[in-house]
Amino acid sequence: MKDSRRIEADSIGSLAVPAKAYYGVQAERASQNFKITGLKMSPEFLSNLALIKKAAAMINHEIGLIDSDQARAIEQACDEVIDGRFSEDFIVDPVQGGAGTSANMNMNEVIANRANEILGGEKGKYDLVHPNDNVNMAQSTNDTIPTAGKMTTIVLAEKLDAELTRLEYALKEKAADFKDIIKMGRTQLQDAVPMTLGDSFHGYASMVVRCKKRLAKAVEEMHVINLGGTAIGTGINASQFYEDHIADQLSELFGRKMVQAGDLFDATENLDSFVEVSGALKALAISLSKMSNDLRLLSSGPRCGLSEINLPAKQNGSSIMPGKINPVIPEVVSQVAFLVCGHDATITMAAEAGQLELNAFEPVVFYQLFESFTAMTGAVDTLVTNCITGITANKDHCRQLKEGSVGIATVLCPYLGYQESAKIAKRALRERRSVRELVLEQHLMSPDQLDILLK
Amino acid sequence: MKDSRRIEADSIGSLAVPAKAYYGVQAERASQNFKITGLKMSPEFLSNLALIKKAAAMINHEIGLIDSDQARAIEQACDEVIDGRFSEDFIVDPVQGGAGTSANMNMNEVIANRANEILGGEKGKYDLVHPNDNVNMAQSTNDTIPTAGKMTTIVLAEKLDAELTRLEYALKEKAADFKDIIKMGRTQLQDAVPMTLGDSFHGYASMVVRCKKRLAKAVEEMHVINLGGTAIGTGINASQFYEDHIADQLSELFGRKMVQAGDLFDATENLDSFVEVSGALKALAISLSKMSNDLRLLSSGPRCGLSEINLPAKQNGSSIMPGKINPVIPEVVSQVAFLVCGHDATITMAAEAGQLELNAFEPVVFYQLFESFTAMTGAVDTLVTNCITGITANKDHCRQLKEGSVGIATVLCPYLGYQESAKIAKRALRERRSVRELVLEQHLMSPDQLDILLK
Amino acid sequence: MKDSRRIEADSIGSLAVPAKAYYGVQAERASQNFKITGLKMSPEFLSNLALIKKAAAMINHEIGLIDSDQARAIEQACDEVIDGRFSEDFIVDPVQGGAGTSANMNMNEVIANRANEILGGEKGKYDLVHPNDNVNMAQSTNDTIPTAGKMTTIVLAEKLDAELTRLEYALKEKAADFKDIIKMGRTQLQDAVPMTLGDSFHGYASMVVRCKKRLAKAVEEMHVINLGGTAIGTGINASQFYEDHIADQLSELFGRKMVQAGDLFDATENLDSFVEVSGALKALAISLSKMSNDLRLLSSGPRCGLSEINLPAKQNGSSIMPGKINPVIPEVVSQVAFLVCGHDATITMAAEAGQLELNAFEPVVFYQLFESFTAMTGAVDTLVTNCITGITANKDHCRQLKEGSVGIATVLCPYLGYQESAKIAKRALRERRSVRELVLEQHLMSPDQLDILLK
Amino acid sequence: MKDSRRIEADSIGSLAVPAKAYYGVQAERASQNFKITGLKMSPEFLSNLALIKKAAAMINHEIGLIDSDQARAIEQACDEVIDGRFSEDFIVDPVQGGAGTSANMNMNEVIANRANEILGGEKGKYDLVHPNDNVNMAQSTNDTIPTAGKMTTIVLAEKLDAELTRLEYALKEKAADFKDIIKMGRTQLQDAVPMTLGDSFHGYASMVVRCKKRLAKAVEEMHVINLGGTAIGTGINASQFYEDHIADQLSELFGRKMVQAGDLFDATENLDSFVEVSGALKALAISLSKMSNDLRLLSSGPRCGLSEINLPAKQNGSSIMPGKINPVIPEVVSQVAFLVCGHDATITMAAEAGQLELNAFEPVVFYQLFESFTAMTGAVDTLVTNCITGITANKDHCRQLKEGSVGIATVLCPYLGYQESAKIAKRALRERRSVRELVLEQHLMSPDQLDILLK
Repeated sequence: MKDSRRIEADSIGSLAVPAKAYYGVQAERASQNFKITGLKMSPEFLSNLALIKKAAAMINHEIGLIDSDQARAIEQACDEVIDGRFSEDFIVDPVQGGAGTSANMNMNEVIANRANEILGGEKGKYDLVHPNDNVNMAQSTNDTIPTAGKMTTIVLAEKLDAELTRLEYALKEKAADFKDIIKMGRTQLQDAVPMTLGDSFHGYASMVVRCKKRLAKAVEEMHVINLGGTAIGTGINASQFYEDHIADQLSELFGRKMVQAGDLFDATENLDSFVEVSGALKALAISLSKMSNDLRLLSSGPRCGLSEINLPAKQNGSSIMPGKINPVIPEVVSQVAFLVCGHDATITMAAEAGQLELNAFEPVVFYQLFESFTAMTGAVDTLVTNCITGITANKDHCRQLKEGSVGIATVLCPYLGYQESAKIAKRALRERRSVRELVLEQHLMSPDQLDILLK
Repeated sequence: MKDSRRIEADSIGSLAVPAKAYYGVQAERASQNFKITGLKMSPEFLSNLALIKKAAAMINHEIGLIDSDQARAIEQACDEVIDGRFSEDFIVDPVQGGAGTSANMNMNEVIANRANEILGGEKGKYDLVHPNDNVNMAQSTNDTIPTAGKMTTIVLAEKLDAELTRLEYALKEKAADFKDIIKMGRTQLQDAVPMTLGDSFHGYASMVVRCKKRLAKAVEEMHVINLGGTAIGTGINASQFYEDHIADQLSELFGRKMVQAGDLFDATENLDSFVEVSGALKALAISLSKMSNDLRLLSSGPRCGLSEINLPAKQNGSSIMPGKINPVIPEVVSQVAFLVCGHDATITMAAEAGQLELNAFEPVVFYQLFESFTAMTGAVDTLVTNCITGITANKDHCRQLKEGSVGIATVLCPYLGYQESAKIAKRALRERRSVRELVLEQHLMSPDQLDILLK
Repeated sequence: MKDSRRIEADSIGSLAVPAKAYYGVQAERASQNFKITGLKMSPEFLSNLALIKKAAAMINHEIGLIDSDQARAIEQACDEVIDGRFSEDFIVDPVQGGAGTSANMNMNEVIANRANEILGGEKGKYDLVHPNDNVNMAQSTNDTIPTAGKMTTIVLAEKLDAELTRLEYALKEKAADFKDIIKMGRTQLQDAVPMTLGDSFHGYASMVVRCKKRLAKAVEEMHVINLGGTAIGTGINASQFYEDHIADQLSELFGRKMVQAGDLFDATENLDSFVEVSGALKALAISLSKMSNDLRLLSSGPRCGLSEINLPAKQNGSSIMPGKINPVIPEVVSQVAFLVCGHDATITMAAEAGQLELNAFEPVVFYQLFESFTAMTGAVDTLVTNCITGITANKDHCRQLKEGSVGIATVLCPYLGYQESAKIAKRALRERRSVRELVLEQHLMSPDQLDILLK
Repeated sequence: MKDSRRIEADSIGSLAVPAKAYYGVQAERASQNFKITGLKMSPEFLSNLALIKKAAAMINHEIGLIDSDQARAIEQACDEVIDGRFSEDFIVDPVQGGAGTSANMNMNEVIANRANEILGGEKGKYDLVHPNDNVNMAQSTNDTIPTAGKMTTIVLAEKLDAELTRLEYALKEKAADFKDIIKMGRTQLQDAVPMTLGDSFHGYASMVVRCKKRLAKAVEEMHVINLGGTAIGTGINASQFYEDHIADQLSELFGRKMVQAGDLFDATENLDSFVEVSGALKALAISLSKMSNDLRLLSSGPRCGLSEINLPAKQNGSSIMPGKINPVIPEVVSQVAFLVCGHDATITMAAEAGQLELNAFEPVVFYQLFESFTAMTGAVDTLVTNCITGITANKDHCRQLKEGSVGIATVLCPYLGYQESAKIAKRALRERRSVRELVLEQHLMSPDQLDILLK
């Protein structure tokens, strides 16, 4: 019974699909053609695509291209898709040939079959609501799919932005906590000059703020869509009314302002805006990885490392070494950063490969861009919750290291000159004595002068 | 009832896990710490890791470190894991901080709990079989995880190799079919000199053969493992007997020869062999993408393109343009190639980031390397089945294009010189006349001479 | 005589340098340590670094830290460096260990030696003007080098922007020229629906405008500098007066507004702004490559390709095939795009590798970022001059292709439905008849209806 | 006088070139078309291209296609090119459109003009020896340029291999020197278990050996050439005798065995072998960068870092911080590694972009591949000479760190179990007491047992 199948036909021929399936022949073909990742398409993406279908149905009804029953049924079906009701019916691999036609037809078929059902019809007959003629009406894969991709990017970027804001505040709080902890700064891993531990965390917070701002700026490009351009940008088969109102209708449903591109050919064939977003995300990713590396360096030890800070212990570090705690949270952040960098390479190559009026490689762009966002959002979330907020400082050790160093010799330069200061520094290191001691011993400065300088 | 939980404790503290879960406190912690991709770890990887656990239990039993009951229970538990029985119990994200300790402990816990159960014990008590002391015994994350990664790569590479062999034969068959179809060769997309369509497909087959061989060579490195090195390569906590026999025991169970590395420090800290495999896969990927691009170029049209060949129609090409068929199979191959290139970038960065005695970024290396293989295997499969075997040639169109071209002027060079030949070629193009006609009109060669030359 | 050498000493020891050299012992050491590319550092970069030295000398003189003679001599030396007078004396490889200390000291030494000479002193003695104490005074490699790198990026970006403006106008001119040339649009290299050739070029122009804007936005980040932060951001050894005035002084000399970062630690240790600029350049690069690929596709032939447009013949295309003209200008644009993408990968990895208070990998960031800009500027220049402006269209061929296609079947969909339209399209292709003919033959529409539709 | 010019003509038209120039009109056009990097083509590449020209002339003479005077003059001209005599006459940018036609014609012109001169003729007349008809005879850009690229790669790889051998021995020497220095191993930057410093250096040496072997294997592919395939692989315009003998003739001159590919179409259109070589180089590069990062970590300090080893002081580390010595040599190695990774991305994209019978993007592949080799060779050279050989160990500090650590708790596991051992380790850390002390205090083991264990 549950294996019963119905026969559907398209231009290619006939094919059986499960009788209860809401998808149809075209999704079935695509699922057979593309067994690539074995994964499902992004739920957010499907939800946004359904929102576009709903907006289109509303406009198409308004000008009488579909009747009230059709409109009502399509809109209800869209809402149900958005509610995640048909998640099992989206069967096409996220990595699919074509510029998303299979995703688009999978959606058209699910909505059409559900709408037929709502109107008392039968799945697979498409007599009351047809996937191409009524649901896809006035749309093309080539304008709906990139638009859904942009909407999804906007939504995912908002989630990441919220986590980055949490990160910013967590870092600023640590900056305040650690503002009086003096420690040695290090350049090229070599002792440099003193600073506070608070300075380090403030620096990280400043970096997060800049990267957030930059990402938000990049995401602005996602609000410019080619909906209404249909197949290649000429708007073939879309009415003037649709052209004039679809972006506003979608904006209303989506709750964010989307605007139609000034040049629909350009907007249909070029994917550089996705490259830009991925690039801005990459700039964030490598900065977070650098910060994470710092956290691992500063917490290295506990006995044989720098040990200036302690990361919270979140899990046993080793299956063989008892008591070992590892900096697993910063490590996962770096791993995600490497993911984002690799995904950026994929996105770049795919965007470059567009030809003439279309880029047929959008599916892989979305597959990787969406994962870049979700993985990074998860990484920042755990970074804040399971690492940053629990960091403590080893104040005494910081001070001891600083006092044992000769980096303080730098302040002598303006008084003794670079070469003389260098001699003192080298001698201090060699003889394991303090810079202060040597300056006084050689009567290079008075104790008072020196005290002011080293304050 | 199904929500009932048991309390487990580790060095970090106590934590509730579902009462029925085979995993334990450490997997639970890790699953909370790493919500990154939302995906599961690779089943092949888990299976191979269980095989290592089984081999280790056999050796440890042989020297009396665990008793017969423990050994039997652990081995049975491993077999059940390999059969996929506990797939829901592997709850750690494939992208995880640490060098795979969480994956390793998830496995140790599942095996230990199942072994306890087999022996009449209770889940979560670990009194009969302990995850660290009995299952993980003589192992470390740092030698088991890379070894399982290498085994998985070997298995996935075998699957890809089989598909590549199918591709090679499919291409050679087409080369034979098309060996008499004369067509214009093109360099830089400009008409060059004649060739056969069979030459093109033979060239693709030759490329596949070379790429296959190269990949097989790279995968050879995967047979060198660091099992027995334990934490950092010193073999701490592993007995001499274990050191001497574990590789052979594993080889027997795995059915492929695995050998212990000569330098276990090197083998523990460096991931360059994974980079090499990914690099060889990348060289294949871009070559397949180039071939796929060619197929799309040669089949472009049907009326406004080169139209020398026809790809089989596998699905409707457009939601808006009726009758349109698109080259979706070659397109998905290129998308997978871009994936592989991006994954290679991730793998490269992760491998570079190792520090001192370990590279803690293996999880992301495996995540992307495994996907590179599976996606490419799927892509080659569909390429053979749904594209190459169904390609047909437009023999007449090929001939007409060739005859209309002036590329044949090249053969005149040795007789008339480059400059004179260039003049003829340019005039032929300008006046839309044939090279032959012009040569004869200008009495540059006799008809007989020319016929021999143009044969 | 020309081989005579003088001996200089630093903390490392003594070393001979050519007697006539303006550089000193530290540059000499660095040139021996780093024989990597065999190339010279960027002249623009050196010029901007000298400008910083000049600004610093002016401020340091204003507060009496150096006397009038020293200031005058240093400023004159800087002006001479900017004039390119000592180009042979900058001997350090652009790829150098350290965060640019060698470049900085090479500059300090050249300026100091020249200033000594101006003041009647001797090269190598540094008694009147010392490279560290007087030239480098109040500066650090770690604030001057990134600042010089940002200034150089600004200047190089201005040059590229000017070329992009030329490109934009050249494309718009072609868009106007070709606005009435009807042709088939192609998606996925398959015949789609009609458009004009002008639409294509207008689309390219729109892409250029967006990419230009985005790049300009990214370059804004280059105006935020860490000058005054000295070694790690604390401003050690810089006076308050210097802190307050150096950015303005530099802005005045440089002719563009430069502002001091709000967080000097962040600004010293993070290179994400360079990653962002490189990323925006990459988004441009791949878009130009896509456009260049289109130009090569559209001009493919002359007899066996699409042949819708002709690129100007700029050089013989082949050493063996007479009369062959190749699209070498678009080809070089794509090659430069690949360079830019690769350089972006290098820059990304280098930026990620920063540690604690400094990123020591700036030299390779600058080496590749500067080449990205100069190569792209050269590529766009030749693209405009030697390609775009000379493109002509094959109007008749465009029309013939369009008329032979069945893409026009798309407009039937709203009237006949997708499936019926698909049947007509397929039959038209199969029987090599026109869509119009078949619609009329089957009495699906009246001739008048059809004429309106196909207008 | 020095500005006097001669007029040359080609199919494009007439153009002035400097009267004294050995290059001709085609090189002049190319130098105007491609102002990209401002650099010269690789001397090794030009030398190898001249060797091909010489081999071809010898074969062509042998079958009487050119006379003895022509052959003698061409061969002499080739020898002079190889001696570097005309380095100023190779004026085409290494990044050039076309698959190297401009480089090939620049070479053909220089040889032809010099040969004419040798035979008493005049530059620019080409009456005695013609660049296309006599020098380029039986060749095509499409077979000579990739062949010259492969020869160059072989030569550059030999140089790198020699440096890697030096590196291997230097590392092994250090491994021997440090074989008795006990230190703490670290995983994830956290204290792990003891090892010797010699183990570390032995591990590096093992890595170098593997990477060397792998690279050598990849370079084997460079010995398979497409010479004789001419334009697209059909061998058009090459005689059977030439086909049969050119590879052997070239092998003799070149001193390495070169063999003709079995499938010349494949060998002409696919660049995957260069991708493979670049990939193997990348695997080496990131491994060397990892090792360099280790050296920087281990030598961090001198007071506030790990300070287990000392790198030789090769130059002042700072312009502002006196006495500071930085790890500039390992830093430059990492920078070169990042270069190599970026170049690999460029090479990959260029290789993917080939179309039909040719890949027109070889110039950028060579530009970056050659720099990858030369930069890496320089980096390894300075790494050996200026760093590895001078490394010293801080034996006492290594021992102190180890003794202060609790990593030794790992050996307790087999006796006390993981959880008990973890408790001891944590208490030891918390109370700053030794593991030994706690085990004895708690009577967990006898002093004798413990001594044996900790030996």
